[in-house]
Amino acid sequence: MPVSLSNLDLINSCDQFPYLDPSKPQEYFDHLNKYVHLRVVNQPRPEVTFGLIRPEVAEGIAKCEGWELDTNSTPSTLTLVAGSTADERNVVVDRSMRSLREARVFQVLDKWREELYTVYGVDKRELFAVERSASPLLGVVTYGVHMTAYKRHPSGMRIWVPRRSAHKQTYPSMLDNTVAGGMAKGELPYEALIREASEEADLPESLVRDRVVAVGAITYLYERDSQAGGECGLLQPECQYLYDMDLTDSGAECAPNDDEVESFKLMEVAAVKSALRNGEFKPNCAMVMLDFLLRHGHIVMEDEPDYGEIVARLHRRLEFPMR
Amino acid sequence: MPVSLSNLDLINSCDQFPYLDPSKPQEYFDHLNKYVHLRVVNQPRPEVTFGLIRPEVAEGIAKCEGWELDTNSTPSTLTLVAGSTADERNVVVDRSMRSLREARVFQVLDKWREELYTVYGVDKRELFAVERSASPLLGVVTYGVHMTAYKRHPSGMRIWVPRRSAHKQTYPSMLDNTVAGGMAKGELPYEALIREASEEADLPESLVRDRVVAVGAITYLYERDSQAGGECGLLQPECQYLYDMDLTDSGAECAPNDDEVESFKLMEVAAVKSALRNGEFKPNCAMVMLDFLLRHGHIVMEDEPDYGEIVARLHRRLEFPMR
Repeated sequence: MPVSLSNLDLINSCDQFPYLDPSKPQEYFDHLNKYVHLRVVNQPRPEVTFGLIRPEVAEGIAKCEGWELDTNSTPSTLTLVAGSTADERNVVVDRSMRSLREARVFQVLDKWREELYTVYGVDKRELFAVERSASPLLGVVTYGVHMTAYKRHPSGMRIWVPRRSAHKQTYPSMLDNTVAGGMAKGELPYEALIREASEEADLPESLVRDRVVAVGAITYLYERDSQAGGECGLLQPECQYLYDMDLTDSGAECAPNDDEVESFKLMEVAAVKSALRNGEFKPNCAMVMLDFLLRHGHIVMEDEPDYGEIVARLHRRLEFPMR
Repeated sequence: MPVSLSNLDLINSCDQFPYLDPSKPQEYFDHLNKYVHLRVVNQPRPEVTFGLIRPEVAEGIAKCEGWELDTNSTPSTLTLVAGSTADERNVVVDRSMRSLREARVFQVLDKWREELYTVYGVDKRELFAVERSASPLLGVVTYGVHMTAYKRHPSGMRIWVPRRSAHKQTYPSMLDNTVAGGMAKGELPYEALIREASEEADLPESLVRDRVVAVGAITYLYERDSQAGGECGLLQPECQYLYDMDLTDSGAECAPNDDEVESFKLMEVAAVKSALRNGEFKPNCAMVMLDFLLRHGHIVMEDEPDYGEIVARLHRRLEFPMR
């Protein structure tokens, strides 16, 4: 059955966590409090939540040393009680996640990456780091970079769109952004982007440094489904730093450079819009593409009944401390 | 005393209404319920609020025919009870506001414009229209267009920035966006922009149609202060549709075309940033400029500690039905 997704449907497929409706506040809090709130002991503001955890996941983590689960409070909380510095907390978190991985408690840990993501405190400094594959268990904010390369053509703009490999574990064969990747501990977005552009799209560093432009960020609260692999329903609040690159008259072409990407195609805007409607894009990549199309006049208020809602939903105010 | 405002300070000067802190929800609701909630009778969802009204303003409006004030409910509500179609409601609202103007009840009505703004229902169609100068009394969402014209120069981008006339009643002598204006009833943003570009910056229609690009929108909840003229503390939830125009190699210059603008200046990005820090921009124009600088790589995450917060706050999800 052919699908035909509206732009708001695409937003709803990625920014899935409900918003507060001031006329029915209890509905929002009931939903929010279905999750166990991740806390860290001895923080300046003890009531600050750093992540939202599914109850069965919190129970599993609480069996490790250094954590305390309180299911009698509202909301329920899982508190990291061991360690008083980022380095000390990192040791505890690392040991916990490795033991859970060895015990095969959570499927997402089968995709262990040996790559750390940083979680930030109220002071915007590192609170602790966590193995990338374990971050959805804690429901903490993670950060990435997404870049859209395009060419201006007399008949209109064309966008470089890669198709993911059919054998990728997550979102196989779906369309992606020209370059995209997560930001590991210690990385800054611009440098992460330069690295990924070379690795994923075979774009030379000098060209990227010369042409890439930072154009903002999108933020959303995603709930993992079966396409993501592993447990369903884990929450992923994400911030993607966005870049555009105009390749007009550069002679440069995007090409697969590793086995993550099957092929690159230079698509007309109408074809991109059609692929979006057909649900061919990975959910968060659809969000990035919508933001690109909005910023380049390819989605306009006059044709888009949900324009205001879409603009706001691409930039969710995440209720967690952020970098 | 010289001021030095951070970019987040500039956001806070425009998007002033508090956000929900899930750890202290009552604070948010206590604040929200200080205002009287504007309702309209016989709507599909009776509990939907269309605007937030200061209590003393609600009392004044309630003295007019067609309105009912209920201060015993939580929140207090002012309900437009007369009329069952947009046309019928328009007559009631118009008659009410004209009588309040004649009685000199509210200062903001001294700047009566004979220009209608549309308020939208849950179905995104016209619910009623209200005289522009009266819209802050009802605290309803209003819509405008803002355009930033710029030139690319070998030494960097330059931006066309107008200074408002010293004799303007609102924000005299402050810096503004190249072109900006409100959207009257029946107008669409693109056509409103074309009209304003000619009226305010003497930019010919054909040039604007050829070069202007829709680039998104900003949304915020502003609280009027003394610079705005009239009563302080009135709420203005606003949505500004944004446009960029690259005037490189066009030969076009921006010039004052009416008495609203004192002068235009083609400013380097560093000078624009300095003027922002000095508080020289009208508050919502500073928001538009921040969005422009973010989209063009002139504010980057690596240099801006509040980057994530700024991106989200430029796109507030307004909790009212919108067009």
